[in-house]
Amino acid sequence: MTTPMTAERSARAIDDIPAYCLDLAVRARAAGRRLARLSGQRRDAALLAIADRLIAAESAILKANALDLAAARQAGLAQPMIERLTLDGSRIAKMAEGVRQIAAQIDPVGRIIEGSVLPNGLKLSKVRVPIGVVLFIYESRPNVTSDAAALCIKSGNAIILRGGKEAAHSNQALVTVIRDAMAEAGLDPDVVGFVATPDRAAVGELLKLEGRIDVVIPRGGESLIRAVTAQSRIPVIKHYTGNCHIYVDRRCDHDMAEAICINAKTQRPSVCNAVETILVHREHAETGLLARLCQGLSDAGVEIRGDERTLNAFPQARAATEADWDTEYLDLVVAMAVVDDFDAAVEHINAHGSCHTDAIVTSDYEAAEHFIRDVDSADVFVNCSTRFSDGGEYGLGAEIGISTDRLHARGPMGAMDLTTYKWVVRGNGQIRT
Amino acid sequence: MTTPMTAERSARAIDDIPAYCLDLAVRARAAGRRLARLSGQRRDAALLAIADRLIAAESAILKANALDLAAARQAGLAQPMIERLTLDGSRIAKMAEGVRQIAAQIDPVGRIIEGSVLPNGLKLSKVRVPIGVVLFIYESRPNVTSDAAALCIKSGNAIILRGGKEAAHSNQALVTVIRDAMAEAGLDPDVVGFVATPDRAAVGELLKLEGRIDVVIPRGGESLIRAVTAQSRIPVIKHYTGNCHIYVDRRCDHDMAEAICINAKTQRPSVCNAVETILVHREHAETGLLARLCQGLSDAGVEIRGDERTLNAFPQARAATEADWDTEYLDLVVAMAVVDDFDAAVEHINAHGSCHTDAIVTSDYEAAEHFIRDVDSADVFVNCSTRFSDGGEYGLGAEIGISTDRLHARGPMGAMDLTTYKWVVRGNGQIRT
Repeated sequence: MTTPMTAERSARAIDDIPAYCLDLAVRARAAGRRLARLSGQRRDAALLAIADRLIAAESAILKANALDLAAARQAGLAQPMIERLTLDGSRIAKMAEGVRQIAAQIDPVGRIIEGSVLPNGLKLSKVRVPIGVVLFIYESRPNVTSDAAALCIKSGNAIILRGGKEAAHSNQALVTVIRDAMAEAGLDPDVVGFVATPDRAAVGELLKLEGRIDVVIPRGGESLIRAVTAQSRIPVIKHYTGNCHIYVDRRCDHDMAEAICINAKTQRPSVCNAVETILVHREHAETGLLARLCQGLSDAGVEIRGDERTLNAFPQARAATEADWDTEYLDLVVAMAVVDDFDAAVEHINAHGSCHTDAIVTSDYEAAEHFIRDVDSADVFVNCSTRFSDGGEYGLGAEIGISTDRLHARGPMGAMDLTTYKWVVRGNGQIRT
Repeated sequence: MTTPMTAERSARAIDDIPAYCLDLAVRARAAGRRLARLSGQRRDAALLAIADRLIAAESAILKANALDLAAARQAGLAQPMIERLTLDGSRIAKMAEGVRQIAAQIDPVGRIIEGSVLPNGLKLSKVRVPIGVVLFIYESRPNVTSDAAALCIKSGNAIILRGGKEAAHSNQALVTVIRDAMAEAGLDPDVVGFVATPDRAAVGELLKLEGRIDVVIPRGGESLIRAVTAQSRIPVIKHYTGNCHIYVDRRCDHDMAEAICINAKTQRPSVCNAVETILVHREHAETGLLARLCQGLSDAGVEIRGDERTLNAFPQARAATEADWDTEYLDLVVAMAVVDDFDAAVEHINAHGSCHTDAIVTSDYEAAEHFIRDVDSADVFVNCSTRFSDGGEYGLGAEIGISTDRLHARGPMGAMDLTTYKWVVRGNGQIRT
């Protein structure tokens, strides 16, 4: 599976990590510059070639994945970790489908954000361009490899992939497939660079390459992101955790409220867009909805940590402590509190939330619009599950992460968010007086 | 001129800098949240009130400015510095006019960047929202005070202003006018905070307030920007210097080329969008344009540092060294080189430029379009002077700076660039399966 080029790289890695990393970045810059000059059609054709090759290379990919799985079992990795690491025919098909969906997106490169003719006749436009070279540092799930590479190719960026060591064989196999497909489509394979050494020093070296790498996107646990941010001289787009809320407003459809709360908590509790705290308007102590929500969640296997008024309505709940309002459980546990009114709910969310995804369930027009305006989060939802906060669900094909930063990109980041812009001014001899 | 509130603050500043800075940030956050809820009409009305008060308070502002000027002369500041510091009736009128122009802009808050209805009926939109709290650190020119405050009010952000100590009295007077006008217009004056102590420790304290301040914009010399970036835990949008280029292509209007080169170099040589290197296609050694450009620049008082081929055409020029290609002179000096072709020009610009503003003079359609595509700069110009790289010229009313970063904002930053976005999803009960 290993091409001569990647073999040569791995060999060099052992000798001289700084030189190896510099070489990766220099190749990525050159390849990225060439990629940015190609038409969207050429980039999309390469993506389709990658999708086809992923399917065709299934057995080689699964062989590499088996090596990672064997090592993981030997190392005694927990079952959920092994589950995340595991590839099979259907997962590879999904990866290929994701790449095809990214190919089908609108080309973000060259899109005009705004434009005007200035009084002196200058024609001004603000045009999307690739960011340049993206360093992507991620953990365990190998399917992220093709998502990230595809989003960068789509947006005209070069990418340097640094995956978790647990998935080293799988990632190497996937990158080889991607690079071979690019070469076949006439694109420079160095658009997709791969850090082919498990040596942690490589990350430190790469994070020093300000000016050669334009942005770092770490995706994984909070400790990874904090470590990268502390070390990096390059701008980092951070993807911290999600302490997501649902506020069940005074006027709402009770069935809808119950369905949304249970879905947001239980459909996949281990991910960042699962709900962690449910706030319920005080009138629902009387309407019975509070008890009904608790019962429904409890029946679905959820542990409830409630404030005093929640405990009054549902004595089986455990008493919440102050820490519960700030905790991302990533598990079948939910914090529940009764709030006096809309303002108290918004205040609680802005004080305790992580500005990730927060939802209101309401049938009140004003409450919906004010919630959208006042909740300071990347993703603000009305009458739907927080679980929709996702690049695939938003129609972006995939996501390179869900930004909890405020600058450049917020929430699920697709190909469009991997671009920046340049101002283009066309004149016919204008000088400034 | 000093209101009781600012007087109280100054007093506290002397005692406890960390507490003073925290208080500034907390007030700014609360005021910013309230500002973001107001209609654009209310924000614009406050801007017009500020413009009116600036005119009405002319004598008080000039009195404060006189104190700064007296101190500057006593300290022996250089004449250009004193010139930058000086306010007069006409400059104050221009400041007021800038604020009015900002008020006249389209409201960036709430603008929908994109939106769609997803297959499951969810209505998705990406909506512009204020960034939050901006810390603006700037040097000497007091007119920047009203520009920055007005851009932040327009975009729904709170701002904390930290000006240079040379302009302390002028800035205090201007901030008082702005805050009084806001109070009069029914807005919270704490939207415009002011660091009323010259103590440098205040900057260090403010740069620690991650989560309370959302972005830092330093505007001034490179050393200021480097110091802020090194210290800050908050994202910084950097405004480094401009090593701007003009490439005079093979096919071009010679008169236009001469006019643009002379204008870009001499109209205001001390600023970041003045041209620093001129590249000329080799054929112009024969067409005579190379010698003509040199003569014209020389006649305009510009010192020319040329490569060998430039010296052949214009022996009076001084020989350039390698360092000249990387130097931002900010003076009546220009580096000149002859390039073999279009590609060599682009390569030179991408290698030596600072990704600020670069221009081509050409009558060749392909060359123009390829220059726009291939030059990796924030501002790419065809057939006009680099001096147009400016928020006012772009019709943004003013600029809070000219970003040389790649993420979030590039080039002149107006009110639109002081926003981020949130994803809004409106549903009617959707859950994820």
